[in-house]
Amino acid sequence: MEDVAIIGASMTKFGERDTWIQDLLAEAGIACLEDAGVSGDAVDHLYVSNMASGEFEGQTGTANALAHDLNAMPAYTQRIDQTSSSGGAGIYAAWQSVASGASDCTLLVGGEKMTHRTTSEATDVIASLTHPAEYKHGITLPSFAGLTARAYLDKHDAPRESLAEVAVKNHYHGTQNPHAQFQKEVDKETVLESPIVADPLRLYDFCPITDGSAALMLVPESKASEYTDDYVVISGIAGATDTHVVHQRPDPTVMNGVVESGESAYEMAGKSPEDIDVAELHDMFTILEFLQMEGLGFADVGKAWEHAMEGTTYIDGELPINTSGGLKSKGHPLGASGVAQGYEIYKQLMNEAGDRQVDADVGLACNVGGFGNCVITTIMEQA
Amino acid sequence: MEDVAIIGASMTKFGERDTWIQDLLAEAGIACLEDAGVSGDAVDHLYVSNMASGEFEGQTGTANALAHDLNAMPAYTQRIDQTSSSGGAGIYAAWQSVASGASDCTLLVGGEKMTHRTTSEATDVIASLTHPAEYKHGITLPSFAGLTARAYLDKHDAPRESLAEVAVKNHYHGTQNPHAQFQKEVDKETVLESPIVADPLRLYDFCPITDGSAALMLVPESKASEYTDDYVVISGIAGATDTHVVHQRPDPTVMNGVVESGESAYEMAGKSPEDIDVAELHDMFTILEFLQMEGLGFADVGKAWEHAMEGTTYIDGELPINTSGGLKSKGHPLGASGVAQGYEIYKQLMNEAGDRQVDADVGLACNVGGFGNCVITTIMEQA
Repeated sequence: MEDVAIIGASMTKFGERDTWIQDLLAEAGIACLEDAGVSGDAVDHLYVSNMASGEFEGQTGTANALAHDLNAMPAYTQRIDQTSSSGGAGIYAAWQSVASGASDCTLLVGGEKMTHRTTSEATDVIASLTHPAEYKHGITLPSFAGLTARAYLDKHDAPRESLAEVAVKNHYHGTQNPHAQFQKEVDKETVLESPIVADPLRLYDFCPITDGSAALMLVPESKASEYTDDYVVISGIAGATDTHVVHQRPDPTVMNGVVESGESAYEMAGKSPEDIDVAELHDMFTILEFLQMEGLGFADVGKAWEHAMEGTTYIDGELPINTSGGLKSKGHPLGASGVAQGYEIYKQLMNEAGDRQVDADVGLACNVGGFGNCVITTIMEQA
Repeated sequence: MEDVAIIGASMTKFGERDTWIQDLLAEAGIACLEDAGVSGDAVDHLYVSNMASGEFEGQTGTANALAHDLNAMPAYTQRIDQTSSSGGAGIYAAWQSVASGASDCTLLVGGEKMTHRTTSEATDVIASLTHPAEYKHGITLPSFAGLTARAYLDKHDAPRESLAEVAVKNHYHGTQNPHAQFQKEVDKETVLESPIVADPLRLYDFCPITDGSAALMLVPESKASEYTDDYVVISGIAGATDTHVVHQRPDPTVMNGVVESGESAYEMAGKSPEDIDVAELHDMFTILEFLQMEGLGFADVGKAWEHAMEGTTYIDGELPINTSGGLKSKGHPLGASGVAQGYEIYKQLMNEAGDRQVDADVGLACNVGGFGNCVITTIMEQA
């Protein structure tokens, strides 16, 4: 198994973008080539993380088109879909291509164009990942989140305010990130008084609909020095599934895919939760940040909400979580989100995170597909 | 790099299937587990090759659902889309997962459900892989095929009948394959008098719209003996792209993705075209069989049509091509086709091909995405 290094990264401005998927992908792809100092024709494997350009725009074949746009032909190319964790799945695929020895230079680009569709249309495309037996009963991803939040607050006697604190923190972090969709702070009262979406969750408990893309460049660590003196290594990476039918889970407040992928990634990296200096978690809904903190061992089960109340996950706290603003504030262009998590951890470990820089040698990204249906956890370290 | 073995394979009956994508995938998945003698919970990586269940059925998340249906949780799972070569891309992804050392047991299932949509609707979904600049001018995949066939016949002074011979041969082969959609022979006159679709190509020059699925089970060769004494190894595999905008190719009768992926796969396997005993080529249109025979070195450039006229590619010929009936007669459920090519080569090398058995130690499968936009070539050998 080849050790794998990341030698470049990029992301576009997230938000409403007046363009189409192909130009979004090319924008991040070109920026990543520039960041890594690699020309398109040096890329031998090109992966595109994208959930639904066919449904959103009637356009497929995006990976082939991107190879063309980046002058990467005859590089092998392929699209990766793992619903909302397509980006994390892309990191895993890109890692495999290098770790297997098949590739000397893999470019991963994740992207999604969504804002030209209504929120209801976008929610329906995303809900197509659920089991029809649940969907027929009116279940969408936001419904799952509301039901789970209610169960969590009840089970652990947690205050509703603790969820609001996640939104407040991640909006604050977003103000430090020029790429984030939202650049504004919100206070707890605003979150708690915003319109109900899926009780007890309200508008500000949810990530927005977003356009954007992000990219990473991976090479064998044995060849990284040909490109740069400073790079990051992927020391642990693993994915795991949970039941596809969410109501079959013994405890809806535990995401087994998070637990299993985390344990495997820690084992591979030889690390434990205490070793992690900075983390990007998949806060598509505020409640998910709690479930991942507990599943990954950053908080005891039932206690993540206390960290939120105490503020230990702020950028200057004990374990900074979602310094990028998270999906909540940075935005959630499905196929891009996991790649953008990788971008944030890379930038933090490279000391290139600007106003939101933290002191970190080891970082973790957790990308959640569906409602925990498949989760990919990646651990990165300074070389 | 771990050497990779195939220890089991399955495919469903191809044709019109009154079911949905999830049950099609489960049918092949369960059959492959049985064929390999592996239980679902031993699978650690599960890949699903599928182009467009979202567009065809409004259903996504199929990989997660399949992990659930096969009791493979917490196996990592992901969908792979490389348009009409999604199946070959799946073989490559599954190979990478084992070759990288990440997986001890990977199940690949490819499938597509299409026949509930009209031919025009299905053609439009497939055409969404083209560049909009070409699509706006009325280009679909069948149009490309017609234009290319005309160019080939003109350039090489080849008779129109030679294309008909491909259809006649592959229909004959299909009569030997109980899984094939069509179980009937056609004669040359029937092909040449069938309705024009894209001049000079007629109805019988095209593959049908098909439902179906197929599966392969991959393990490290070092562990294959734990499962079976007889298996097949993947000795060469590679993918390559060509221009996404087809009219930018210097010569439309040469598919550079075929040439490049073939050369890389031969080099990896230490084989040359003369070493191949049986091949499955992507005959979505009759003309494609010629372009792949030439691109892979089975015929000199401009001479593949002579082999068709001489009958050397029949099951009892010098190099049997598409003993399964090919896409032409077996059918072309997009995500399944490349996996089903792998199934056929595996069965031939295992001496389990029944009435269509040939004498073969080394086989090759070539799966073409788009109109040669991305091609995956796989070489397999008896262990």
